Amino acid sequence: MKKLDFIKNFFEIREEKNSNLCIGIDPAVEGMRKKNVVFIKYNPPRDILEFSLDIVSKTSDYALAFKPNLQYILPLELKEMRELNDFIHEKGSLSILDVKLSDIGSTNKACCYWASRCGFDAITASPFPGNMDETQNMCRENGIGLFVLCLMSNPQASLFMKSRVGSVLAYEHVAKKIEEFGVTGAVVGATIAYEDAKKLSDILKNALVLIPGIGAQGGDTSLIKIFGKRSLVNVSRAIIFSEDPQKKARYYRDLINQTLI
Amino acid sequence: MKKLDFIKNFFEIREEKNSNLCIGIDPAVEGMRKKNVVFIKYNPPRDILEFSLDIVSKTSDYALAFKPNLQYILPLELKEMRELNDFIHEKGSLSILDVKLSDIGSTNKACCYWASRCGFDAITASPFPGNMDETQNMCRENGIGLFVLCLMSNPQASLFMKSRVGSVLAYEHVAKKIEEFGVTGAVVGATIAYEDAKKLSDILKNALVLIPGIGAQGGDTSLIKIFGKRSLVNVSRAIIFSEDPQKKARYYRDLINQTLI
Repeated sequence: MKKLDFIKNFFEIREEKNSNLCIGIDPAVEGMRKKNVVFIKYNPPRDILEFSLDIVSKTSDYALAFKPNLQYILPLELKEMRELNDFIHEKGSLSILDVKLSDIGSTNKACCYWASRCGFDAITASPFPGNMDETQNMCRENGIGLFVLCLMSNPQASLFMKSRVGSVLAYEHVAKKIEEFGVTGAVVGATIAYEDAKKLSDILKNALVLIPGIGAQGGDTSLIKIFGKRSLVNVSRAIIFSEDPQKKARYYRDLINQTLI
Repeated sequence: MKKLDFIKNFFEIREEKNSNLCIGIDPAVEGMRKKNVVFIKYNPPRDILEFSLDIVSKTSDYALAFKPNLQYILPLELKEMRELNDFIHEKGSLSILDVKLSDIGSTNKACCYWASRCGFDAITASPFPGNMDETQNMCRENGIGLFVLCLMSNPQASLFMKSRVGSVLAYEHVAKKIEEFGVTGAVVGATIAYEDAKKLSDILKNALVLIPGIGAQGGDTSLIKIFGKRSLVNVSRAIIFSEDPQKKARYYRDLINQTLI
């Protein structure tokens, strides 16, 4: 798969699979919590990798993209991440490393470099440290896309994301910079207030919009109506730890499509 | 080494090694940049691990702590990170995973869980997503310390870190929360303005203060004067890629100690 143009690949796969679903690969293990866990049979890296490959195998027909979160796959090494991503690509989907990068300069270059070598097609980053244009350039140089956190749903996130920057709120400023720098996408939580969603819809005219919070977190589908086919709707636990991941993936794919009609 | 009390271990090792130096393990590899790189002879994980072990071996007499940045050691798997941390502990130093965690909830729990199992003694986190008390509790449950980003030096960081929160600036609010929640430490860039340092010195009365920006980044030692023996002064490139890491580590250890007199 040609990696250089995430957005072009996004819309091609969208047509092929008739899906705007992203499946979050968040393989919690026993010891972290009681329910919804991967049991360790051999060793953590192998068990996490096999669980993840199994999810991809069962759900890839319905998934435009997969989004492994780095904190859950921390035990995996380079070649295991590559094996996961090679399989995701073989199944015709994209892979986004959810790292929420919060460094600047050469450290971000290191992340872009390794994410690309591990076979990821994009990463996520936080706007908190600044230098979004620099990070976007580093992603471009490494042939990967960039999704920047814009507005999340948890109440305490509003301290920074809704602080005032000149005449606008910080998340509006971030959204404007995303458009100005041609960043691949914005991350916007599904459960944000309608007035915030309305403001973002006036700014985010080109960027893709990665929408977490559907499924276990109870977000509704109104953001999907606003951003239409540019939406990449993430569902994690409600699919990967269900009794029938394939059926659940189809259910969410169809739910999103009904919203898009 | 007992992991449960980072601060107690910090002050014990400080006395033993007469050092407030933290060495940042940022092993860039060839391909990322022209100079100051690790050359890949066998495979990236092995070469990065061996470079890191070699640095620890040469410099541990002068290092209170080491701080591997996750973006640089991304290719390493669980057992390789554990090997690095076992060696750091064998040499009597502490190890901080510089991950700048920017998630909330179960994802942060996953990071704390793996960081602890990999043998790290603390992690870094961003205050951007909120829920600092939740993250601090998760760190406690996993027996590791937490350093929260408070004020960084790069100009664009001020957009969020110096935004207004009620009657104070955001970094003051973050510093107050660090004290309120009993967070292990704050991360404060060495090159911040004097007036900001003065404000922080009035708030951060108990937390450790991790100070990056000395060495290659040109920060001066005034923050060390302010925070005294609670300072953990990070130097990365100027030590790890120097011709004589041992000599450079001793130089920076002594430079810090002269400031503390």
